[in-house]
Amino acid sequence: MQLVGDDLNKVNHTILDRMESRAPLIPQLAGHIIASGGKRLRPLLTLACTRLCGYLGERQIGLAAAVEFIHTASLLHDDVVDESDMRRGDATANVLWGNQPSVLVGDFLFSRAFQIMVADGSLEVLRVLANASAVIAEGEVMQLETLNNVELPEEKYLEVVSAKTAALFAAACRIGAVIASRGSVEEDALESFGRNLGIAFQLVDDTLDYSEHQATLGKTVGDDFRECKVTLPVLLAYRRGDDDERNFWRRCIADGEQGDDDLNKAMEILQRHDALQDSIERARHYGAMARDGLGTFPDGEAKRALTDVVDFCIERVY
Amino acid sequence: MQLVGDDLNKVNHTILDRMESRAPLIPQLAGHIIASGGKRLRPLLTLACTRLCGYLGERQIGLAAAVEFIHTASLLHDDVVDESDMRRGDATANVLWGNQPSVLVGDFLFSRAFQIMVADGSLEVLRVLANASAVIAEGEVMQLETLNNVELPEEKYLEVVSAKTAALFAAACRIGAVIASRGSVEEDALESFGRNLGIAFQLVDDTLDYSEHQATLGKTVGDDFRECKVTLPVLLAYRRGDDDERNFWRRCIADGEQGDDDLNKAMEILQRHDALQDSIERARHYGAMARDGLGTFPDGEAKRALTDVVDFCIERVY
Repeated sequence: MQLVGDDLNKVNHTILDRMESRAPLIPQLAGHIIASGGKRLRPLLTLACTRLCGYLGERQIGLAAAVEFIHTASLLHDDVVDESDMRRGDATANVLWGNQPSVLVGDFLFSRAFQIMVADGSLEVLRVLANASAVIAEGEVMQLETLNNVELPEEKYLEVVSAKTAALFAAACRIGAVIASRGSVEEDALESFGRNLGIAFQLVDDTLDYSEHQATLGKTVGDDFRECKVTLPVLLAYRRGDDDERNFWRRCIADGEQGDDDLNKAMEILQRHDALQDSIERARHYGAMARDGLGTFPDGEAKRALTDVVDFCIERVY
Repeated sequence: MQLVGDDLNKVNHTILDRMESRAPLIPQLAGHIIASGGKRLRPLLTLACTRLCGYLGERQIGLAAAVEFIHTASLLHDDVVDESDMRRGDATANVLWGNQPSVLVGDFLFSRAFQIMVADGSLEVLRVLANASAVIAEGEVMQLETLNNVELPEEKYLEVVSAKTAALFAAACRIGAVIASRGSVEEDALESFGRNLGIAFQLVDDTLDYSEHQATLGKTVGDDFRECKVTLPVLLAYRRGDDDERNFWRRCIADGEQGDDDLNKAMEILQRHDALQDSIERARHYGAMARDGLGTFPDGEAKRALTDVVDFCIERVY
């Protein structure tokens, strides 16, 4: 934050400026979700990676805003798809304005992201972010297809996470090297950093959903459970459980039949099998790969900031 | 169709090829809507405009497919937004698979369209279609904002139509000249042709919704009425009506209170004030502008084909 604070202010200005439209509902609805306390993690990655590559111009500002628009569009559509009513402690846009404008404003922000990229003029950046957008949508569809499958192999689950979450982290980082014209070795290294960071981020998110600590962040505990989402803690507990426990997961997640006390029971079982603890261990593994991905870049402020991001993404559990 | 039949076959192959994904639901759902008897009107415009500009290469194939993907993505999202259950005589994707995959597969097709454009490599084509996509989303949001407003000025209604429908027609035509590197005069002329054709197309669509003839095309009559959509026939009938009739429109469209016989009554009132007839007259006006927009292009097969499209779009009422 300290390293790229000025840039991030400019990104926020660009975001406000570029969500304007002759349809007043667009800035109103987009403003609600964009203002609602997001960490701006993805644009921050673009800014820090551009800095790491020694670039001194201004192109990262618009492109970081484009990355945040793609992210916001996908959040708006996610909340419709998941029928969520809370995000970051606020009512979601679909609750406040209905599904219709949430879908359409998502489409608008997505198009706007591409307009910003076109104005920037790099076909390579367009390629990276168009690919990421297609992969994200694929990942979300794969998640729907595997939603209630408690027997999903861990690899298949990681494929979903890698697509729906890590693809945008990877793209946000890769374009840092593209902007700085650093060539494909650096591009690949930053993409790998971003992808592993994104996987770690999602695994920690999965764990937080079952963590008491979540409540103190203004989030609700157990959303994934109520939405019958198979996540890593559940996959681990299912494998490690006895017949009774497996029946429990099948009833709650596969069949979606949940009673009042089932979330508590789920948390007990997860605890019993160290499923949360070990999901964080898995996240640490990807965090370590992310850190090592930066190895070939020179030490300095920017590299330190990026490894701090890795630490932050994992340590926010505590 | 005769003029660009071979090209259109190639476009259809490209569409099938590029909707493939490791998430099997994507080609399944996308295939349903793409196969369901669409006229491929927008890609056809790209093909014919490219031909009109004397271009002899193959770039129009992929880009016409990209145009159709943008159109299909917006249909999928529209059906979710409108809660439609029928399209072109088939059950809609949101009915068959639910809203969730419809939103996500729309996102996928939209991203895929940009991937195709990036592979083509023209920043100008990307600019035109990114702009069109943003304008379409804006138009859809404006439509939501004006949905039940029976006092909407005709100009404002045309602004919505121009955005939600005509922008993609205009872009599909403009890129014909871009592909052929014909310069901004021809680009502007084709954009103007497409925009006016698109407006005419939508006004005829509005009219068809209240036409008996609609039923013979496998479509349901009165969808717009039931969804309380203000369209040109209603705007005209409201202005021309007496107090009783205006109360009727306010109750049915503004307040959404509709009884069993109200659609019949609406059709009677529309008939009484020549509202359908005159909506078609308005469409003819835009059709005439479209035709004249082609004036500076040399006569020949391609120009004849494009004026035939104008005639087809208007005469399909009969």
